[in-house]
Amino acid sequence: MEWFLTVGQRIPKKDAPLKATGNALYIQDLRLPGMLHGKILYSRYPHAKILNIDTSKAERLPGVKAVMTGSFASALRIGFMKDNPPLKSGKVCSMRDEVAAVAATTPEIADEALGLIDVQYEELSAVFDPIEAMKEGAPLIHEELGSNILKLPWRFIAGDVEQAKKDAAYIVENTYTTPWVTHCCLGTSGCIAAFDINNDLTMYSNTQIPSLAQKDYVDALGALGLKNKKVRVVQSFIGGAFGSKLDTYSYEYIAMLLAFKTRKPVKIVFSREEEFFATSPRQCTITRISQGCTREGALTFREMEMILDNGAYTSWGATTPSVMMLPISSLYKVPSIKYTAQCVYTNNTYSQAMRGYGNPQATFAIESSLDQLAEIAGIDPLEFRRKNANEPGEITPQGFRITTCGLKDCMDEVASRLDWTGKRGRNKGRGVGMASLIHVGGGARVYKSDGCGTIIKMDDFGKVDVFTGATDMGQGSETVIAQMVAETLGVGIEDVTVINNDTDACPWDVGAHASRTTFVAGNAALGAARKIRDHLLEIAAKVLDENPENLDIKKGAIFSTKDKEKNIAIGKILRSAHYSAHGKMMMADYFYDPPNENFDRDFKGNLSVSYAYGTHGVEVEVDRETGQVTVLKYIAAHDVGRAINPMLLEGQIYGAGLMGLGYALGEKMIFEKGKLRNGNFLDYKLLTAKDVPPVEAVIVETIDKDGPFGAKGIGEPGLVPTAPAIANAIYDAVGVRITDLPITAEKVLKALKEKEKRT
Amino acid sequence: MEWFLTVGQRIPKKDAPLKATGNALYIQDLRLPGMLHGKILYSRYPHAKILNIDTSKAERLPGVKAVMTGSFASALRIGFMKDNPPLKSGKVCSMRDEVAAVAATTPEIADEALGLIDVQYEELSAVFDPIEAMKEGAPLIHEELGSNILKLPWRFIAGDVEQAKKDAAYIVENTYTTPWVTHCCLGTSGCIAAFDINNDLTMYSNTQIPSLAQKDYVDALGALGLKNKKVRVVQSFIGGAFGSKLDTYSYEYIAMLLAFKTRKPVKIVFSREEEFFATSPRQCTITRISQGCTREGALTFREMEMILDNGAYTSWGATTPSVMMLPISSLYKVPSIKYTAQCVYTNNTYSQAMRGYGNPQATFAIESSLDQLAEIAGIDPLEFRRKNANEPGEITPQGFRITTCGLKDCMDEVASRLDWTGKRGRNKGRGVGMASLIHVGGGARVYKSDGCGTIIKMDDFGKVDVFTGATDMGQGSETVIAQMVAETLGVGIEDVTVINNDTDACPWDVGAHASRTTFVAGNAALGAARKIRDHLLEIAAKVLDENPENLDIKKGAIFSTKDKEKNIAIGKILRSAHYSAHGKMMMADYFYDPPNENFDRDFKGNLSVSYAYGTHGVEVEVDRETGQVTVLKYIAAHDVGRAINPMLLEGQIYGAGLMGLGYALGEKMIFEKGKLRNGNFLDYKLLTAKDVPPVEAVIVETIDKDGPFGAKGIGEPGLVPTAPAIANAIYDAVGVRITDLPITAEKVLKALKEKEKRT
Repeated sequence: MEWFLTVGQRIPKKDAPLKATGNALYIQDLRLPGMLHGKILYSRYPHAKILNIDTSKAERLPGVKAVMTGSFASALRIGFMKDNPPLKSGKVCSMRDEVAAVAATTPEIADEALGLIDVQYEELSAVFDPIEAMKEGAPLIHEELGSNILKLPWRFIAGDVEQAKKDAAYIVENTYTTPWVTHCCLGTSGCIAAFDINNDLTMYSNTQIPSLAQKDYVDALGALGLKNKKVRVVQSFIGGAFGSKLDTYSYEYIAMLLAFKTRKPVKIVFSREEEFFATSPRQCTITRISQGCTREGALTFREMEMILDNGAYTSWGATTPSVMMLPISSLYKVPSIKYTAQCVYTNNTYSQAMRGYGNPQATFAIESSLDQLAEIAGIDPLEFRRKNANEPGEITPQGFRITTCGLKDCMDEVASRLDWTGKRGRNKGRGVGMASLIHVGGGARVYKSDGCGTIIKMDDFGKVDVFTGATDMGQGSETVIAQMVAETLGVGIEDVTVINNDTDACPWDVGAHASRTTFVAGNAALGAARKIRDHLLEIAAKVLDENPENLDIKKGAIFSTKDKEKNIAIGKILRSAHYSAHGKMMMADYFYDPPNENFDRDFKGNLSVSYAYGTHGVEVEVDRETGQVTVLKYIAAHDVGRAINPMLLEGQIYGAGLMGLGYALGEKMIFEKGKLRNGNFLDYKLLTAKDVPPVEAVIVETIDKDGPFGAKGIGEPGLVPTAPAIANAIYDAVGVRITDLPITAEKVLKALKEKEKRT
Repeated sequence: MEWFLTVGQRIPKKDAPLKATGNALYIQDLRLPGMLHGKILYSRYPHAKILNIDTSKAERLPGVKAVMTGSFASALRIGFMKDNPPLKSGKVCSMRDEVAAVAATTPEIADEALGLIDVQYEELSAVFDPIEAMKEGAPLIHEELGSNILKLPWRFIAGDVEQAKKDAAYIVENTYTTPWVTHCCLGTSGCIAAFDINNDLTMYSNTQIPSLAQKDYVDALGALGLKNKKVRVVQSFIGGAFGSKLDTYSYEYIAMLLAFKTRKPVKIVFSREEEFFATSPRQCTITRISQGCTREGALTFREMEMILDNGAYTSWGATTPSVMMLPISSLYKVPSIKYTAQCVYTNNTYSQAMRGYGNPQATFAIESSLDQLAEIAGIDPLEFRRKNANEPGEITPQGFRITTCGLKDCMDEVASRLDWTGKRGRNKGRGVGMASLIHVGGGARVYKSDGCGTIIKMDDFGKVDVFTGATDMGQGSETVIAQMVAETLGVGIEDVTVINNDTDACPWDVGAHASRTTFVAGNAALGAARKIRDHLLEIAAKVLDENPENLDIKKGAIFSTKDKEKNIAIGKILRSAHYSAHGKMMMADYFYDPPNENFDRDFKGNLSVSYAYGTHGVEVEVDRETGQVTVLKYIAAHDVGRAINPMLLEGQIYGAGLMGLGYALGEKMIFEKGKLRNGNFLDYKLLTAKDVPPVEAVIVETIDKDGPFGAKGIGEPGLVPTAPAIANAIYDAVGVRITDLPITAEKVLKALKEKEKRT
């Protein structure tokens, strides 16, 4: 029987004291000697030719050290499709297009200088609707491409949907839409670019992908004529990322160019306004879905077509269909699947990763549609879901090999805690609804490597330094990694220091995404810690005259599990190994790359080593007079493999749940002709503490064989099923179905009125 | 035939651009937010009771945050014998005794506050001469010890000196004395102590022993009641150390205590005056030496007795006899040896390591005495030395196993370049002299471990990060380590970054001393680099279908030495290893602890894995009217194993030679009743650029089998034989022998006059 001392414990985040006392250094806090402040001038039009830029007045302003336009380093292109010049020349394609930048001795002078730059435009006709943008004759965003439709052929086929449609007893079809929403990081984006005397670059940044950013910067330096230069990425504390910092952006390259030109460190930090309009939101979608089942309620097919507004340039948002496929192909057992998606350039803002990476959009359609199908099939939605639920050992149509799967347990937990049978179907202003999720839980091979490196060293007294590639952006990976290492080496959590913010010091990691950090970085840390543990036990075995297999380490001591008399302090073993002829100190490295698979050309492959499941259930009350929806109870049950730290895990669930509630009920970026109209916390409805409903996080442990101590990922899942669970509960309460997020009181009221008219 | 691309090249120091442009951050440059400035009040008397300290006025001065006396943390003791409280209470024992300290918002306020502290003393009788201090009834420095003689029984015996004396054909006996000299680091000592919210300590410091300092600080925190705390030592750039920073000192603990008390970072940086009087100089010595030889000139015995003035407290200076034994037992073949040394407490300043660690003092006596012996034996000093010279394969009386030894080659190089036979013995105001040296060249096991750890990681493009425990205090270890790693991994020197200044990031190392860094840290770096090289070759062997043994790496490519068609870029191998199923990135760790030996109780044992040799020869001109000695030519020939970087190696020889010249001809700290009278660069005669004679560095390569690429240590040797070579040349020039360093014009003139009187 295994027993753990730190794994499974509710240990506060290691960085909590620093953060709580204001001692954590965010990018806003960092200053370098001689540092200049950079500011960016954005476009006045969503689509226009740049006729002329006069920077002369700005250049003459005292304190201004450089004014830069797109003519500097004009060949540089960034982003997933390399379609984005950091400073635009020739034309602008969205309101967030960067047309000029200034470096000055103070942010105020830089701001003033922006106002002195005179840009002359010739406005072009613009397109803001992806469906319009696909039409013949629509204004082209990138003329050289000849079309606004991106060459990203998202298409997944399994079974025979046409035949299944013919054979189905029940079929539903509907269209669902989701809006742009944004991450609302309290720590806005920012960086400091600093070249040293060798033209090697250090970038201080709050990126969540230090290793990939490093590569991006190296490539960009090449475009500047700086070959074979070293780039170091140093991460400040990160005040939230949620996918927003999963790419590199124009502002980083502008800081780099300004630093190169001025030979001074240049800092660019976004204002709250910039954070709203100049960072990339969650991809908005239009989804047509059709699902069918047999008379007994077995799902037979799922067909989905999506249109995604790509905006003017391409970041990772355009690749969210790869993750949307996950629930589309594999949430519930569905033999025949057809999915296609088109990303379309428009003159809107361009999108990016956001927690869940397309999964919430797809799951909103799937799980709403499922309730509709259950209804016409005359089956209780819980029963319908149980009947079709995924199970361990399953291989899904996309080729996912399901190892652990606690989906049914999650459903049952939710049903029981919600009093499902007691409350369901009364349709009297109160109702219950549920929705489930599948997500990657054991990494996700979306890049050429899904790996993470770890180096561990231990001193003579049992203090441990862990260098991990993993990024802690607030999710608590530092603490979880420290727990696993402490457990493995038998020391206290306070004895472990995790270093995770410097590409010089830390090994490579593909980045903080895909809920992969606990699983992948955890396994990497475990791999290195086990090497040291084995070495310690080997030495202790000799000293204690015991078989190493009979030895264990806990609380700073190595002891025999067979003979309690045989024990020795770890420090003694460490020092005897060090202070002897041919002395050795404990160091180890490990690179863990999970045995998952990149998709093949048909988008098949075991994307993740294991999969996370969960079910959310809500009870809502709907005010028939106002349309106002109140969430009375929120149960979030998650199959997490094992909870390394239940407190942090619950924090992930609570935080994601609230984000999901915002997505379901209130958040929406309002763009008018490409211009954001509610880019501030007064007009953009971010949920706050007073909006939190009673949330209950239920942890279902399935002890995954591949996970570190059995753990699977939990970073993203908590917001995936929120919106459909609420939509389903509203339907249960008042009989109206909202298919367009967010589910505002106005929409509910309108639907209620239309329903009244019909009856 | 091996050929090297970076090893053996004259590559400028990697940090030279930073230093040359003023971008290197020394401790003087570092600032932390909220940092306070600490200042120390020193004793007014060399020996006195402290009756009372009134700090009330100082405490009331605006800006003063803490005033501290010895009553705070009064149990804390530091130093080699733990005889030194950082802040004294009860009594003071030397003029540099710390009696109080202040932390204030500016250094000026702290200074002003010192003047407001009122200390009442009762003066005690003091003793400043170690011979007087040994006498019955002398004032006791540490009453509780009952004696001023330290319980450090330095004593080495080999053969039978008494019998050898009887058998000797010729015997000389004389007494030699050497003064206190100080390191004169341009970067004065300093630190910043900063506690975090967990009471873990970060110490920013210019120490040359980060790992041992870390342990000292951990122990000190224990005395503060802070158990199991983590200490991180971060090294700033170091503006010279030369042994002065080989221990931890009161000022560091005072900064720590003030930081603990004020909860703010506290910086203490020595003024130039403090650097002179409050750092610990080279141990001054009184040495009686007797040597004898056969009629044919074979050395038969060497007997030496030393008295060392230990000052009031004990640092590593008291242990210099351990290294003095090295030339005493093993420079030239001497079958019978007797050596004893006594360290004696006085009310003087206490001593510390300084480049050569006692070897210059011992070698001055040995090599001066050897010329005297050669003279009475009627043998040319060169011939006499060649006859008795050490040779490869020898095991010396102390148990040193001599592997490589280029001593005779060094002598011959010197003799030839100096035109020894043409110039020797004319005694007409010009003369030539020589002296040789032995020093540890392959580490020195003076601590329980002589090890150094290294961690190396390599990115996908061939950039390499090397984490070494080794300290670069200006000697260039960063560059030399980078060269060895670059050579091994076939990349350019610019592709290698060495991280060497942070105990969190870097593995353990015993410190920068004993000329061990190139050898020990080099072997550690090589061990890790070879692991990666082997891994790369193994992968490349498969790709190229070639036996790994036939593969080599140069200039970023792996190629077959048998078939030039078979080659591939390293980057391709790195990326294919990374971007494949179960991907791996190149990381390796290595802890190298040389197979040398701690001395046994009889001070026998193979202290170093290999030994460095050298011979210096000088031609001098002596002005008979003034006694002024001018060095006309200086040849320094060194057996270095292999020159990894001839330019840096020559720099070590030039720098040490100049330090040796200062020791020989001018430097001396003048103490009067314990008070330093010439503690500034006006009154203390440090040689400067205009004093540099024509120096020729001659590199003799013996390719040591244990050294990295065959290298041995060279950090210290260059000043060891300078003084006796000059003393011998003066004797050759004008027939007077000066036995008391420095050899000032006054002493030479006095000796010339006495000689005139005698003749």
